[in-house]
Amino acid sequence: MSADPALRREIPDATVARLPEYLRTLSRLAEDGVLSVSSEELAAEVGVRSAQLRKDLSHLGSYGVRGVGYDVETLALEISRALGLTEDWPVAIVGMGNLGHALASYSGFVTKGFRIVGLYDDDPALADERVVGVRIRPLRELVDHHQVDPIAIGVIATPAPAAQAVCDALVGAGISSILNFAPAVLSVPDGVDVRRVDLSTELQILAFHAQRKSLAAGDLRSAVVAP
Amino acid sequence: MSADPALRREIPDATVARLPEYLRTLSRLAEDGVLSVSSEELAAEVGVRSAQLRKDLSHLGSYGVRGVGYDVETLALEISRALGLTEDWPVAIVGMGNLGHALASYSGFVTKGFRIVGLYDDDPALADERVVGVRIRPLRELVDHHQVDPIAIGVIATPAPAAQAVCDALVGAGISSILNFAPAVLSVPDGVDVRRVDLSTELQILAFHAQRKSLAAGDLRSAVVAP
Repeated sequence: MSADPALRREIPDATVARLPEYLRTLSRLAEDGVLSVSSEELAAEVGVRSAQLRKDLSHLGSYGVRGVGYDVETLALEISRALGLTEDWPVAIVGMGNLGHALASYSGFVTKGFRIVGLYDDDPALADERVVGVRIRPLRELVDHHQVDPIAIGVIATPAPAAQAVCDALVGAGISSILNFAPAVLSVPDGVDVRRVDLSTELQILAFHAQRKSLAAGDLRSAVVAP
Repeated sequence: MSADPALRREIPDATVARLPEYLRTLSRLAEDGVLSVSSEELAAEVGVRSAQLRKDLSHLGSYGVRGVGYDVETLALEISRALGLTEDWPVAIVGMGNLGHALASYSGFVTKGFRIVGLYDDDPALADERVVGVRIRPLRELVDHHQVDPIAIGVIATPAPAAQAVCDALVGAGISSILNFAPAVLSVPDGVDVRRVDLSTELQILAFHAQRKSLAAGDLRSAVVAP
């Protein structure tokens, strides 16, 4: 258990949801050789108001220096620590179709403290195939695996109809953090966290902006042809 | 062009980002046969404050009826219309590895007004393969396709190193709404919308909560063994 005082602070869910985006932007700035950043610059890069950014970071106990701003590397480390990314997170993926294969090979996972330790699928055609060095095994072997080498997070990448049964198996094995990619709502007992990734969310937000653009273009045309 | 007055309203980005979640929850309630819902119930299902929900929906011109709440189907339709999901959105996916295949078959896309019209990959091994009834073609054919049968949204599902070149090709063809799944930051000219899906974001938020749980369990153990 860490004794880091930052871990004892209450951090609102909305702030937690923005931290990965701040971290991503800071990592990019660090790659570009940027050493310090003002709250206005960082807020503009992320697309939030600077007052919001300062408030979010104050929950971590991070306050920029007036006239200097935030030290990029220090702030990135503070956010990583608050998110728990300085610890090691063993992840198992269940459902090794195209999505499971894509997730297992996704470079964004490995670079952020997440380590794929188990891949599960009951399809005999996939038995013993290896992806990123990990052998695909039938789901019934997950319980034994978890007892020997605990899994922190279970990822569900099955089609929707299989998702609840897989979720029950993960919960039954004692895994209490679940990331669900299946387009299905899952029931879990209290104490189990499920987060759902809906791949269509961002597409819907894009559609909103595309519609606005096309409307504005239409307005412009109307204005041009108006007498 | 639609003359719907809701389309003329300014809707803040933060509200737009929450609309897909409201819509998803309403669709689930409708499936369960729920006809009307109070703002408190809907807010609790989604996990936002009810004041926030009411404010978000007021941007659409939707106000619940006191003591009755919102009509589930009407509100779902209003949100769909505001997001532009009642229109038809032809989508092309570039990069037909595991992720591209997974996205093309993802049932969450087809059900929400999005229609896969083009699949592109330069790998000769994939040439002429069909996924969801669409033939995979080399990227150079996208320009001709777009001229004959316009593509509204381009989805990038390539590995990171190829993403910028693919993005340039999409922008060059005249596509101005891009969804990027590659873990790479893309440069685009003004007027082009890029949204990035980082599959690790939700994993990071889960890690945060898992860390808190494990810390709380540690606190409990300390309390139990304390003299």
